[in-house]
Amino acid sequence: MKGMTKIFTLDQIKEVLKDIEPLQAIERGFVAYSQGKVVVPPIGELIFKEPPGDVHIKYGYIADDEYYVIKIASGFYENCKLNLPTHNGLMLVFKQKTGELVCILLDEAHLTNVRTAAAGAVVAKYLAPKNVECIGIFGAGTQGRMQVEYLESIVDCKDAIVWGINQKELDLYREDMEPFGFNLKTTLDAKDIPENCNLIVTATPSKSPLLSAEQIKKGTHITAVGADTAEKNELDPRILQKADRIVADSVDQCLLRGEIYQAIKAGMISEENIVELGNVIVKKELQRSSDEEITVADLTGVAVQDIQISKAVYEALLSQ
Amino acid sequence: MKGMTKIFTLDQIKEVLKDIEPLQAIERGFVAYSQGKVVVPPIGELIFKEPPGDVHIKYGYIADDEYYVIKIASGFYENCKLNLPTHNGLMLVFKQKTGELVCILLDEAHLTNVRTAAAGAVVAKYLAPKNVECIGIFGAGTQGRMQVEYLESIVDCKDAIVWGINQKELDLYREDMEPFGFNLKTTLDAKDIPENCNLIVTATPSKSPLLSAEQIKKGTHITAVGADTAEKNELDPRILQKADRIVADSVDQCLLRGEIYQAIKAGMISEENIVELGNVIVKKELQRSSDEEITVADLTGVAVQDIQISKAVYEALLSQ
Repeated sequence: MKGMTKIFTLDQIKEVLKDIEPLQAIERGFVAYSQGKVVVPPIGELIFKEPPGDVHIKYGYIADDEYYVIKIASGFYENCKLNLPTHNGLMLVFKQKTGELVCILLDEAHLTNVRTAAAGAVVAKYLAPKNVECIGIFGAGTQGRMQVEYLESIVDCKDAIVWGINQKELDLYREDMEPFGFNLKTTLDAKDIPENCNLIVTATPSKSPLLSAEQIKKGTHITAVGADTAEKNELDPRILQKADRIVADSVDQCLLRGEIYQAIKAGMISEENIVELGNVIVKKELQRSSDEEITVADLTGVAVQDIQISKAVYEALLSQ
Repeated sequence: MKGMTKIFTLDQIKEVLKDIEPLQAIERGFVAYSQGKVVVPPIGELIFKEPPGDVHIKYGYIADDEYYVIKIASGFYENCKLNLPTHNGLMLVFKQKTGELVCILLDEAHLTNVRTAAAGAVVAKYLAPKNVECIGIFGAGTQGRMQVEYLESIVDCKDAIVWGINQKELDLYREDMEPFGFNLKTTLDAKDIPENCNLIVTATPSKSPLLSAEQIKKGTHITAVGADTAEKNELDPRILQKADRIVADSVDQCLLRGEIYQAIKAGMISEENIVELGNVIVKKELQRSSDEEITVADLTGVAVQDIQISKAVYEALLSQ
């Protein structure tokens, strides 16, 4: 390990992220995953009760790749009382042929946000309608911001509406997002989004649907990124029943959590209705084929995204 | 994480190890473990075939303690061809109440060796005969050296015999160990050890017994540290049958691997014959009670040792 390990802070990582385009790496990761080339063992977990916290260890590699990656991510939900971030984490990149630790990315969970937002952009590339009239975002948090940020390179539309739970968070959102050049509206009324937007991203921790099936117009694409557990649920299961295409980041995982899990549990769809994102990327016939289709993508987060983003960042940092 | 994470290299770790006495920390760890206060989830594993390598993620915490620890350890068995160490690793220490990463110990697997050797010394403290005539070591590798090094603070005896597989490694061993002030003999004949020694440590990767039951004299203590898988085996199972006390570092783990596993599989002992080290430490009636007893301790390595050694090193580094 001596002389080999490079350690990078969040500031260094953010700086290098300006110069790289992670979408291609994330796309290649999903393709490898759907081709069965990714080894991802079960997630390691530590649970703390007092104060409540959880730690997850996600790790794996793409066969015949140069590296393997271990990500440690934590959520300690009372950290706000201490003026500390709720979510934290780091990623470790090792050489697959020797086990050498080549870098530690002290990203404080930021790269998880980046890889999630990048997946949203990948989805939009293959499933969003050709003419996006307006982008609709549910959730004025970090992911609500970053999804818009990463859609910028994929979608021409500069009009967006964001829904949030209070005007204060919406005002802060508008302030933060103005530099990105969007014509941004905010709303506290959820139905404004499906009425005006044909590319919708849901990025909330909601446990009950934000959208009903009746509200969804033909030609709409919805990417759901909020629900990453078996309890969370942002979409009325009938939206998935109504959809012409349902895409999972990981079929295996979406059978256990997220919107697809909810819709299967409600008897609205079955496993045969689902296609996997890595297959959508490589097979034109699985991508949006008309301006009339309703499409839904369920992103629950796959370790191959962590593998790809950390490698991309490490390689960019190396070449500096 | 900002401003909090401290990163220490092997040189820094070795320097601070000179000032600390890890035995107490390891002892407290075993006691907490036997009292059911240690949370240790299943080990995470990544396996590589070409070239052969394995990565293990061990993690856990003691309830109501300040920290939790994640250890990453790898073995890449063709690294020697590249002039790289076969074994490598690092330990990460986090705060249990907030998830903050407080330090990264880039110990290159050294602390695993330390915690294993320290466990050998803890065992000797409670199970070695009062008058150790001569220390016998099987295996002239790293652990064969470090077991002797850590016994120094527990056992007065300065006579030792080491057995190895060739004279070259034995000569190197003697050279390395001379500074510790032992009167050291080397041998290629295994039976020299049980004939002359009443405190024996086996520290080899052997898959067939190095010692037979007939060779073991009354009053002998044996600590077996080499066998950490279901295949490895250093002691004739009849030695355990003959023993007056059989001690496991972790009963649960010793039922699945190591000398106890082998002896149970051979029908020589049963689970009821085993006591756990953490209980031996606190209960005088479980410790050696005469100079006639034959005692055997099977050390397969428990994550609580990693937790304790990394915390001890971190705290010592902090107070510098």
